[in-house]
Amino acid sequence: MDRASYFSDRANGMKRSVIRELLKLTNKPEIISFAGGLPAPVTFPVDYVKKAVNKVLDEEAGKALQYGATEGDPRLKGKLAEIMMKDGIDADPERVMVTTASQQGLELMAKVFFNPGDTCVVGLPTYLGGLQAIKSYGGVPVGVELDEHGMIPEKLVETLDRLEAEGRRPRLIYIIPDFQNPAGVTIPAERRRKIVEIAREREYIIVEDTPYRQIRFRGEHQPTFQSLAPERVLSLYTFSKIMLPGFRLGWAYGPDWLVDKMVMAKQSMDLCTPPFNQAITYHMLEAGALEAGLKETIKLYHHRCDLMLAELEKNLGDTPGVTWTKPEGGLFLWLTVPEGVSTDDIFEKAIEENVAYVPGSAFFPNNDNHRSMRLNFSYCDDDKIIEGCRRLGKLIKEVL
Amino acid sequence: MDRASYFSDRANGMKRSVIRELLKLTNKPEIISFAGGLPAPVTFPVDYVKKAVNKVLDEEAGKALQYGATEGDPRLKGKLAEIMMKDGIDADPERVMVTTASQQGLELMAKVFFNPGDTCVVGLPTYLGGLQAIKSYGGVPVGVELDEHGMIPEKLVETLDRLEAEGRRPRLIYIIPDFQNPAGVTIPAERRRKIVEIAREREYIIVEDTPYRQIRFRGEHQPTFQSLAPERVLSLYTFSKIMLPGFRLGWAYGPDWLVDKMVMAKQSMDLCTPPFNQAITYHMLEAGALEAGLKETIKLYHHRCDLMLAELEKNLGDTPGVTWTKPEGGLFLWLTVPEGVSTDDIFEKAIEENVAYVPGSAFFPNNDNHRSMRLNFSYCDDDKIIEGCRRLGKLIKEVL
Repeated sequence: MDRASYFSDRANGMKRSVIRELLKLTNKPEIISFAGGLPAPVTFPVDYVKKAVNKVLDEEAGKALQYGATEGDPRLKGKLAEIMMKDGIDADPERVMVTTASQQGLELMAKVFFNPGDTCVVGLPTYLGGLQAIKSYGGVPVGVELDEHGMIPEKLVETLDRLEAEGRRPRLIYIIPDFQNPAGVTIPAERRRKIVEIAREREYIIVEDTPYRQIRFRGEHQPTFQSLAPERVLSLYTFSKIMLPGFRLGWAYGPDWLVDKMVMAKQSMDLCTPPFNQAITYHMLEAGALEAGLKETIKLYHHRCDLMLAELEKNLGDTPGVTWTKPEGGLFLWLTVPEGVSTDDIFEKAIEENVAYVPGSAFFPNNDNHRSMRLNFSYCDDDKIIEGCRRLGKLIKEVL
Repeated sequence: MDRASYFSDRANGMKRSVIRELLKLTNKPEIISFAGGLPAPVTFPVDYVKKAVNKVLDEEAGKALQYGATEGDPRLKGKLAEIMMKDGIDADPERVMVTTASQQGLELMAKVFFNPGDTCVVGLPTYLGGLQAIKSYGGVPVGVELDEHGMIPEKLVETLDRLEAEGRRPRLIYIIPDFQNPAGVTIPAERRRKIVEIAREREYIIVEDTPYRQIRFRGEHQPTFQSLAPERVLSLYTFSKIMLPGFRLGWAYGPDWLVDKMVMAKQSMDLCTPPFNQAITYHMLEAGALEAGLKETIKLYHHRCDLMLAELEKNLGDTPGVTWTKPEGGLFLWLTVPEGVSTDDIFEKAIEENVAYVPGSAFFPNNDNHRSMRLNFSYCDDDKIIEGCRRLGKLIKEVL
């Protein structure tokens, strides 16, 4: 029998991502990689982990090493609601659902919302892992243009009008409001209110994916979509970028009837998120690990972001048509090259020059943009940022 | 808009499991519960965890708290291959894939193999979580009768003949060969060979779900399906029952082209299984935690199983038509009551009498068996087993 005939249509549609294969090249030690999305290990609060883990093993090992509830550890849910309350959300711990990091939140979203062929509004560009999850259930992401202030409400209306007229009403609107991955842009309050108004009028659900929100190093916090429209917003959070990714711990929050369905879907997905990791995280939060760690993380990423901006200016500031975003937080910025240069085509050259980025095409539903790249500023130290920007600047100038 | 209209067909098909709702009743402290599938916390190797976790945090925190490869930590994969090699499998570490426990293995199986409407051969009865995963993708489990030696090859042939004739060729054959959940029965070597022959001739994939295999307390190990037909068997393992469930750590093993597809599907599911938990487990295995712990676990479950068998004999031995299986290992046995009694109907009475079981109907694809119940012997201590069996015996006799 032909191998493909064993698999579901969905599985036959899954391909090894060209991007991920390319990124394997970036693991060589001599390469300065701005490609990954890794937090800086120096920000991991190891001492807090150690204290919490020993407390867990001394005082509650029997429980922490056992199975737990699919919804999550009730003590942790309370703490997560507190984090949201400090951010202006009237959060109910009962509507918090612990997830195996926010990638599982995206998978649950895709499983719960998409029949094959169903459309979904996403940013243009948007997070690769969101696109993968949606596509893995046969969903069809449809992009809405961003500018330096994120998703453009007028373009959103145009897209909704068109899709509704075609009888392809989207299942939901997927947005990363703060320091968007990959573009690094943030939606201002007024624009958020406009988007909420549009969603409310047309009865759309908004999924607010918000892994970076706490890492703001300049400007003012803008209200969350959750606080603006709690009746229709599903929010996805994770500790991966704000504390550490190695626990694979995040949470989802939204209207009870949505969260309820997500919990049902999670049962067959992994029964529960590791209770051990949940117990440790609970005690870390109790001890103040998040606030203490974030202070250092924000300081470090602020510095690294500004250094990268300065080095880009130094190496590419006088090059016509080359532009980049100026993030107010997060881990990424987005660089655009002039017409005629393809960031896909020069990727291999970049690897030869020992510098790496993610070609922007990875973040477009149809991979049809070739003039952009995502640059990560959280992982590399100062020397590497300086040298990496030099290599990148030289390469782009040579190609032009 | 109607709430259901927001969801996928798949999500609208998900219902809160009646069983799981019933089982919530069994959490009251006064209830002696044989219902859950929990390992005994006294078997958790807490000292090994403590040593390993401190080693990880002292020596490799930056890596263990970071993101990891979707396939899993290569060091851990090597150790998992060793476990399989000791069990007579010519295991290649490259074909090991770490999963967020075997429930994720089942979810990946379902995602990768089932289009809506596709059939799947399962035992009659079979594991509830397997049924849930298959159904959550629209798969249709079709049961094949078991006897005290597990799945009956002649019945398997009949079912395959019938489904093939109807143009409903099953996607795969799902089997729990050792101390089956829920029936507690084990397939002897000769019958395994027959099933492999059938699968080979008709080109079927077998999924071997094997969470209990290492917990054998009498009789001889039978060869794994993996060792008999490595070209067509996907094996699912977990540490949940043989070490501890709180890490949510398991693995899948099979032909490279199958494992490859599972890895692709896992990327959008959770990116990777917690690297922290993988690193701890690697060091625990290095230190011999599995062998040391299993020795104690086997001794304890052997004792508890025999005690439950003796108490059932004492309380129900003279009751015509009441029978139960005599497991050689694992965590469960299966009790059958005479025609005319419904284990669904007497469940509430049992709760009133402060004793709980899982009604057998939960383990049948159409919930259409009402004469059986699953009893867990791993979790309750001696006093509870004795008193629980007394209550259960009294109840069944009263109803008859």
